[in-house]
Amino acid sequence: MILSGSAGHVGELALVRYIRDEFSKGLLRNNLSIGIGDDAAVVRVGGRNLLISADTMCEGVHFDMSFITAYQVGYKLVSVNVSDIYAMGGTPEWFLLTTSFPAGTSETFAQEFLSGINDALNHYGAALIGGDVTSSNSGIVVTGIVLGFADTPISRKGARPGDKIYVTGALGDSACGLELLKKIMAPVAVEKDDGPNMPLPWEIMRPLLQRHLMPKVIRPVFGGCAVSSMMDISDGLALDLRRLCEESGVGAMIYENKIPMSGQMLLSAKFLNKDPLRFSLCGGEDYEYLFTSSADIDTAHYIGDVTDRGLFLIGKDGKSIELMDCGYEHFKT
Amino acid sequence: MILSGSAGHVGELALVRYIRDEFSKGLLRNNLSIGIGDDAAVVRVGGRNLLISADTMCEGVHFDMSFITAYQVGYKLVSVNVSDIYAMGGTPEWFLLTTSFPAGTSETFAQEFLSGINDALNHYGAALIGGDVTSSNSGIVVTGIVLGFADTPISRKGARPGDKIYVTGALGDSACGLELLKKIMAPVAVEKDDGPNMPLPWEIMRPLLQRHLMPKVIRPVFGGCAVSSMMDISDGLALDLRRLCEESGVGAMIYENKIPMSGQMLLSAKFLNKDPLRFSLCGGEDYEYLFTSSADIDTAHYIGDVTDRGLFLIGKDGKSIELMDCGYEHFKT
Repeated sequence: MILSGSAGHVGELALVRYIRDEFSKGLLRNNLSIGIGDDAAVVRVGGRNLLISADTMCEGVHFDMSFITAYQVGYKLVSVNVSDIYAMGGTPEWFLLTTSFPAGTSETFAQEFLSGINDALNHYGAALIGGDVTSSNSGIVVTGIVLGFADTPISRKGARPGDKIYVTGALGDSACGLELLKKIMAPVAVEKDDGPNMPLPWEIMRPLLQRHLMPKVIRPVFGGCAVSSMMDISDGLALDLRRLCEESGVGAMIYENKIPMSGQMLLSAKFLNKDPLRFSLCGGEDYEYLFTSSADIDTAHYIGDVTDRGLFLIGKDGKSIELMDCGYEHFKT
Repeated sequence: MILSGSAGHVGELALVRYIRDEFSKGLLRNNLSIGIGDDAAVVRVGGRNLLISADTMCEGVHFDMSFITAYQVGYKLVSVNVSDIYAMGGTPEWFLLTTSFPAGTSETFAQEFLSGINDALNHYGAALIGGDVTSSNSGIVVTGIVLGFADTPISRKGARPGDKIYVTGALGDSACGLELLKKIMAPVAVEKDDGPNMPLPWEIMRPLLQRHLMPKVIRPVFGGCAVSSMMDISDGLALDLRRLCEESGVGAMIYENKIPMSGQMLLSAKFLNKDPLRFSLCGGEDYEYLFTSSADIDTAHYIGDVTDRGLFLIGKDGKSIELMDCGYEHFKT
C-alpha cells in the first residue's frame, strides 16, 4: 500500500516503505549491510564499510531562486549529502553530481553553482569524481551522491527502551530562517551584512539565514560513548524521531523544556509571530543529529527517553500529549 | 570556458570540461583512478576497483510520456546506468534511485515504474540499496546510480594510432525507433504485437521500438584480446567517437560501408524517408560499445582505424570527408 492521503497519490514515507518491501523480496542483497530506509546504504567492499547516499534538490520544492544564490544551492547540496554520511558515523570521501539545468541557464549561474560545490567539498575534504550533465525542460534539479566509510556504521534501528535521546544542536533555526527569507524576498549573501531593508538586526538573522541557505554540518561526537542509533534531522524532529522509533520498533518521550533553541530563533519567532516550538519540532532542514545512547553524554543535548511504544511530548506544564504528526514530507496530501 | 554556441548558455561538453578542469586543480583526489569525463569513476577500495556512475532522465528531454510507459522508463533507467559499468569492462552490483515525481503522480505510475526498475535489476543481477524520494514541481526527473567492480577498468584514454576501431552491434535502431514512435504517438508494449494502426509490420518495428523504449544492454566480449579504450555509444557514434578520440589524444578514420545497420532500421528509414547513415552516426541511445584494440577481434564489428589526428568518414565511393559534428548534446545552442 503506497497511498497517503485520499487522492490516490503516492506519499513519501509510504513510497519508501513500498520500495523496501518490494525490493527486499526478490533481489540478491549483494553484501548489503544496511539498506533502504536509513540515511545511507552500507555495503562491504574489501573488508571495509562503504557508505553511499543520494539526495536530490528540486527548484520550487527544496529551494526558491528568488531568495537563494546559485553558490548557496551548490554548497547546500554537498552539505545535505555529507550530513547523511555523518548520520551513519562515517567520513565522506567522494562525491558525484548530476545537474539538470533548463536550456537557458547562464554560464554565470553554472559557475557559481559549481563554485559552491567546490568550496563545500574542500570544507568537508571530499573529492568530486563524476556525475551527469543533462538539460531539463522545466526547473533546476540537482542530485548529489556521496560515498564514505565508517568503521562502525550507526543505523536507525538500534534504539532500545531505556536509552536516552539526544540532539546535537539547536533546532528550528533553518525553518525560522526560511520564514525570514520570505519577508526579505531577495537572495542574501550570508558572509556579510547585506545592508538595509532587513526586518531584524543582522546579527540576529545571520545564523538563521546561514542555517537555511548554506548549512555547514558538523560531525557528531559522543565523547567515546557507544551510540545505539542515529539519524540526521532533515524533516523536523517530530517526523524524524517518528522514523527512528519506527525503524527501531520503540517509542519515545521527549521534554519540551529540553529541546535546544537558539536565542536568535526565539527572538525572530516572536517578531514573526510564530510558535518557536513548531519551528523546532516541525520545521525541517536542521541538519543536526538525533541519536540514542544508554550513556550520559555531555557533548549533546539530552531531550528525552526511549520507551516501549508511543510518541509523547511532555509540555512545560508537565502534561503529556501525543507528539504532533508534523514535518516535511514530500507528496503528503 | 564553458560556452557553447552564442547565447551565453552552458554547453554539455563544455560544462563537463569546465567541471573537470576546475575540480582537478584544488581537490584531493582521494584514491581516484579514473574520474570525470569517463563512463564511470573508478576508485580503489580495499584493493578492489570500485566503479560508480550516475545517469539522470528528465521527462520532456529523455522521454515523452505520450509514447513510453512508466515500466519502460524504470527499465531504461537501469539499462543506461548498467551500460556505463559495462563500458568500463565492469560488472554492476548495486543501484540507488532518486525520484522526483510531480505531486499528482498516481500510485499506479509509481508501481509500474518500480516494477520496471525491479525487473531490470533482476535481469542484470544488481540490487537496489538506497536512494531518495522527493516531489517535483514540474516534470518527472529520475536518477540512477550504479556501483560495480572491474578487475581491469577500461577507460576512454588508451586508444593509440594503428589500433582498430570496433562497435559491438547495429547502430541507429533506437533513433529510428523514436521516429516510428512519433508516428504511432501512443505507448507501445514491446512484449507483444500491439494490434492495428501500426505504420509498418510488427516484426520490422519491434526491435527498433524495444531498443528505444526498453534497451537491454549486453556485456561486450573481446575473445580474450586486450582492449585499449572503450565507451558506450549513448549520444551517437559521431559524437562519442569524437569524445573517445579527444580523451585519447588521437584521430580516427571510419568506413561508411562497415558501419553495422539492421535490416529493420534500413527498411524503416526508407519508409520514414530518412537517411539511415544519419540514424547510425547521429542518432544516439544505441547503448552498444565503441572500443579500440590492436588485435583482430571477431566478436565485434570492425569499422575503422585510429589515426594521429582528425576525424574522417570514408564514404561508399571511397572519398574521405570530415566526420559530421552531430549527435545528442544537452544545451547545444
